[in-house]
Amino acid sequence: MIRAAIIGATGVVGQQFVVALQRHPWFTISLLAASERSAGKSYAEALKDQRGAFTWYCDETPDAAALAMPVLDASSLDGTEADVYFSGLETDAARELEPVFARHAVVVSTARAFRDEPDVPVLIPGVNSDHVKLVERQRKQRGWDGFIVTQPNCTTTGLVITLRPIMDRFGIDRVIMTSMQALSGAGRAGGVLGLDILDNVIPYIPNEEERVEIESKKILGCLGEGAIVHSDFRISSTCTRVNVTDGHTETVSLSTRTPSTVDEIRRAMLEYAPILANQGLPSAPQRMITVSDDPFRPQPRRDRNQEDGMSTVVGRLREDAALDNGVKYVLLSHNTKMGAAKGAVLMAELLKQEGFLNAR
Amino acid sequence: MIRAAIIGATGVVGQQFVVALQRHPWFTISLLAASERSAGKSYAEALKDQRGAFTWYCDETPDAAALAMPVLDASSLDGTEADVYFSGLETDAARELEPVFARHAVVVSTARAFRDEPDVPVLIPGVNSDHVKLVERQRKQRGWDGFIVTQPNCTTTGLVITLRPIMDRFGIDRVIMTSMQALSGAGRAGGVLGLDILDNVIPYIPNEEERVEIESKKILGCLGEGAIVHSDFRISSTCTRVNVTDGHTETVSLSTRTPSTVDEIRRAMLEYAPILANQGLPSAPQRMITVSDDPFRPQPRRDRNQEDGMSTVVGRLREDAALDNGVKYVLLSHNTKMGAAKGAVLMAELLKQEGFLNAR
Amino acid sequence: MIRAAIIGATGVVGQQFVVALQRHPWFTISLLAASERSAGKSYAEALKDQRGAFTWYCDETPDAAALAMPVLDASSLDGTEADVYFSGLETDAARELEPVFARHAVVVSTARAFRDEPDVPVLIPGVNSDHVKLVERQRKQRGWDGFIVTQPNCTTTGLVITLRPIMDRFGIDRVIMTSMQALSGAGRAGGVLGLDILDNVIPYIPNEEERVEIESKKILGCLGEGAIVHSDFRISSTCTRVNVTDGHTETVSLSTRTPSTVDEIRRAMLEYAPILANQGLPSAPQRMITVSDDPFRPQPRRDRNQEDGMSTVVGRLREDAALDNGVKYVLLSHNTKMGAAKGAVLMAELLKQEGFLNAR
Amino acid sequence: MIRAAIIGATGVVGQQFVVALQRHPWFTISLLAASERSAGKSYAEALKDQRGAFTWYCDETPDAAALAMPVLDASSLDGTEADVYFSGLETDAARELEPVFARHAVVVSTARAFRDEPDVPVLIPGVNSDHVKLVERQRKQRGWDGFIVTQPNCTTTGLVITLRPIMDRFGIDRVIMTSMQALSGAGRAGGVLGLDILDNVIPYIPNEEERVEIESKKILGCLGEGAIVHSDFRISSTCTRVNVTDGHTETVSLSTRTPSTVDEIRRAMLEYAPILANQGLPSAPQRMITVSDDPFRPQPRRDRNQEDGMSTVVGRLREDAALDNGVKYVLLSHNTKMGAAKGAVLMAELLKQEGFLNAR
Repeated sequence: MIRAAIIGATGVVGQQFVVALQRHPWFTISLLAASERSAGKSYAEALKDQRGAFTWYCDETPDAAALAMPVLDASSLDGTEADVYFSGLETDAARELEPVFARHAVVVSTARAFRDEPDVPVLIPGVNSDHVKLVERQRKQRGWDGFIVTQPNCTTTGLVITLRPIMDRFGIDRVIMTSMQALSGAGRAGGVLGLDILDNVIPYIPNEEERVEIESKKILGCLGEGAIVHSDFRISSTCTRVNVTDGHTETVSLSTRTPSTVDEIRRAMLEYAPILANQGLPSAPQRMITVSDDPFRPQPRRDRNQEDGMSTVVGRLREDAALDNGVKYVLLSHNTKMGAAKGAVLMAELLKQEGFLNAR
Repeated sequence: MIRAAIIGATGVVGQQFVVALQRHPWFTISLLAASERSAGKSYAEALKDQRGAFTWYCDETPDAAALAMPVLDASSLDGTEADVYFSGLETDAARELEPVFARHAVVVSTARAFRDEPDVPVLIPGVNSDHVKLVERQRKQRGWDGFIVTQPNCTTTGLVITLRPIMDRFGIDRVIMTSMQALSGAGRAGGVLGLDILDNVIPYIPNEEERVEIESKKILGCLGEGAIVHSDFRISSTCTRVNVTDGHTETVSLSTRTPSTVDEIRRAMLEYAPILANQGLPSAPQRMITVSDDPFRPQPRRDRNQEDGMSTVVGRLREDAALDNGVKYVLLSHNTKMGAAKGAVLMAELLKQEGFLNAR
Repeated sequence: MIRAAIIGATGVVGQQFVVALQRHPWFTISLLAASERSAGKSYAEALKDQRGAFTWYCDETPDAAALAMPVLDASSLDGTEADVYFSGLETDAARELEPVFARHAVVVSTARAFRDEPDVPVLIPGVNSDHVKLVERQRKQRGWDGFIVTQPNCTTTGLVITLRPIMDRFGIDRVIMTSMQALSGAGRAGGVLGLDILDNVIPYIPNEEERVEIESKKILGCLGEGAIVHSDFRISSTCTRVNVTDGHTETVSLSTRTPSTVDEIRRAMLEYAPILANQGLPSAPQRMITVSDDPFRPQPRRDRNQEDGMSTVVGRLREDAALDNGVKYVLLSHNTKMGAAKGAVLMAELLKQEGFLNAR
Repeated sequence: MIRAAIIGATGVVGQQFVVALQRHPWFTISLLAASERSAGKSYAEALKDQRGAFTWYCDETPDAAALAMPVLDASSLDGTEADVYFSGLETDAARELEPVFARHAVVVSTARAFRDEPDVPVLIPGVNSDHVKLVERQRKQRGWDGFIVTQPNCTTTGLVITLRPIMDRFGIDRVIMTSMQALSGAGRAGGVLGLDILDNVIPYIPNEEERVEIESKKILGCLGEGAIVHSDFRISSTCTRVNVTDGHTETVSLSTRTPSTVDEIRRAMLEYAPILANQGLPSAPQRMITVSDDPFRPQPRRDRNQEDGMSTVVGRLREDAALDNGVKYVLLSHNTKMGAAKGAVLMAELLKQEGFLNAR
């Protein structure tokens, strides 16, 4: 078994890591770490807030074994304690601690701290699996035994999954996207108040549009001479918050480079969908994309749990009359499953399968 | 005073007409009509449902005078009873009854039954006021003393109001719009169940996208030789329903024909905004468009009541990198005020001012 | 295997019956019936609405075998087609059709049509299992080979489950209950509009309070000489609707006949909880009641799926200073699981185990 | 004009004070104060958050005059700057600063810091106006020129308003109340996250039930020899949070000391209702209580703005079968109008009218 450390274990993403890893066939949770405040407590104790309430936010419950584990101080670790460090840290803490772990171990991070570094891949298995090779350059350049791989922003994930088969078949010229994002994407610290979102839409999420635009081009870029050449399609997004717990809905309009029909796009998605099926990756969906012909779908509450949140659901595929070679659709991506911890675990599974992550 | 009949008076739009007209300086409610089921009752009685609950849906309360009025059977009227007929009928009933009234009187309708007729204007004062002249052709052609004018679909209203100043200054090449529409837009009969919209987004509203695309081009078209030449910009929309009571939010991406900057677009909107101010129309907003610089606005709950719901609020004005001469923004339009009955009353005010509607 | 017919199969409760029965170890779905409109179609076809949308409302998906089954006209059945008829009919249809089926077969009904008949038990396994014997009198009296058993109103279910252990140990003098009920309890036909419940509470549910008060006394009554003597505690309820999809929350204040402490009440609940555990009933929860010590629980979204919705969650157990021997608590009951179809299936399991239901 | 200082002016309650006072006929806002962080800025600047968003939470907009006022450091004031200090401070800050102001001036506070002091009245005009005399004892005892009067917890307000006429006519033996409270009652700092309340009910609000129980008995107590004798009825409450922006809904069951009928209770409420009408208090409602006969009312979204949120709406008045002389009803009280700043301004109006507050 590969020993997995969960960093930021008491936070929302950390809890999701516990759920995604606690009965994993390849990984065993060997270490839980959080801030100094939690250090020394059991995980169960560390999850209690000052009012005594148990602050657990996943639908799935934590195993007794996890609850009994001691929580360590993340800043006291040095990367020798485990084989892989799953990091759900905030940006600033990630910037400081992840390089420490990477000196000796593999770091799989949901934080955005290193996503824009030229030698750090932003990885989605099945979308840009080949970018994993960038870690060789990273290791050499930084003199590390380990490396950092990062997961994209949760709004980017569903978008690039659906763009991948279209780009491969027809090329992509431009993309215009509007997101209607779930509350869980805002996290809990600094999360959206009920008073602000009830009977409301908030038309702005700081930094979100920039992340989508930058990360899409990197993920869909080509791995050239040891560096990624960002893709050159044009992209514009408007990111909004709606009153939904989980599941980001996105409306996408795009024009392809070469002529395409709606039927061809649908077929490209369907043929691409099983790319990770039967590859032996435990967290992989049978279909990366589920295409619905019901015009009223996808809906976040009804479709987000498709394949335990690992399949992106596409509906309303139709021509876009405002663009040349235009097509439009609506997609739904589970922002805290494929878009967060479980997606990161899938990434670690790919790393292991490709020989980049081993038990020491 | 001009005698106003309200047709479909017990319905949601009919109630809004009562609110918009009950203390109007030019119009007096002379007649309330609804289906046969309500006929013979007082308005107060007709508003009670079978469980005894008072089915009144506006924030404003109806005056005692309105509540005491008798409700007539709409199908028994012939157009001689009033000067103007405000119709909040459903499509099929409108198709049958509105021509009867129009033989003798002016019909101002929120129904879509006649919107696509070449001789029937779809009118928004301040946006295409000149289209009112089309009624002369309508009268002649149909041999009516009166005529029908219609109000656009509520999702179209906010969009074309914001497109108007851009088109006038720079021309419009293409428009891509995603709407997040309020529940009140679906009405009550066949309205959206709480069970379907809670923690959810519904990505499809039957017929809505077609209406937006057709009506936008007609409203922004030119009045040629007695007929409207539809505007030829390209337009594509995705219309969704979100868990909001009132106020349609729309994200708009567009490219202008001639080069434009974000600042120029903002200036064009600001200069256009007071087009109806101080013209003497009682229901007109001081500003057709309110431009907000707060990136978190517009929000439906906080901004829909701007100028009693008659001003379209625009925010997040910025460049759109995916389009040539691209600009994007978010707009908010009150779908049951400017987008429904009160907007229709504004239309009647314009008709009176232009000499098309008089007390007989 | 016992052959089960599902009557009203296309409705919400009918769909829940499909989910609860489709992989059941004792029952096999042998027949689906609905109104004439659906008759002759496959179940999959019958679930499509006029707009082509698939109207399926459970989280669990129907098996292909169920979708392929033909739907029969319920009014054409005579009770000889299956061993047990699970009826999710509306009151009027139930009043007409259930006696037809009961002439030959067992009818397990969620409808309220026969709940108040003196010879028809309103049954919750583990709460008043002995009331099942009433069916012998029913059979004799009505000359039927089969019989009808009914499930209580979904708001009553959680209440009487929590009252049972208290009554057994201390007696109950009076109960005052306020419910905050979920939208799914209102069903879909005539369901609550999003426009009416958003940012709102509706303080009245027609007939609900009477049902709670009558049915609680019947269920907690004693089976005397072939008839139930209703319990004589005093009960008062206020039933409201809140913006929640599933899960009825109820605040309960009660006074016991003999002195009781909060700790004793808690212990009584905990000792009662496993009453159905390990009895071999496939749908039974391990604990009829789950007691939480977290003051912020139970919450409908976080606790309704406890034991797949079959366990009633109790929290905030504390003294009630306004009543003699007063105690108060908050309970949560899943209205469409234990409170509807799955609870009815549990009832059928009890009938089989007690020898009242067999394959013919 | 009486000079009014608003303390905690940038907070939610402080903003409500600005709205309630900015065009008041008796009071003029002479001073705005907040924490050190805001001191030195204009009110408009102080309302901007670090992201540049304008943090204004009332439906009504602040006047330009208010926005231009400088914000002072509350801890630098000494009570000589104004005639009356409206305090929207948090408990700890109130405990420290309000006595400083009270040495020289009248302090009208929404904080709970001094509510339990025997010489500090918890005042609702029209409910216990005579308690105002307690301030004479307070002044003498504490050696202050000014004094502190406090407003009850917002959940208590609606309850005691409806209990007042019942107690006066029949006496009250016991009260059992369940509240369904709005999000605005939780404030913004530490407010309820959308993620926690969507599709949910939270069955616990720390300290709330104790406040309701203690304050109800004090407010409905008698002013004896310079001290209040708390009323001795028995009271029990369960306070929950529901997904509503504004307006606390409460279900109330009570038993009267002497026999009463539902009709008599209704009459008592109706006769009591105009107690503040035509008394010359600018913020007073015409009816303290509005009684509705529509069984579906009161509803928070539809009824909270009755008389600008100053009237408590009562519905569903009926017998309570579980209590002797039992009656039950549902009430709705606007927690941020009568239950907060505007209620506090009404209190100040009473103080002025009774001669306890004058311009110096």
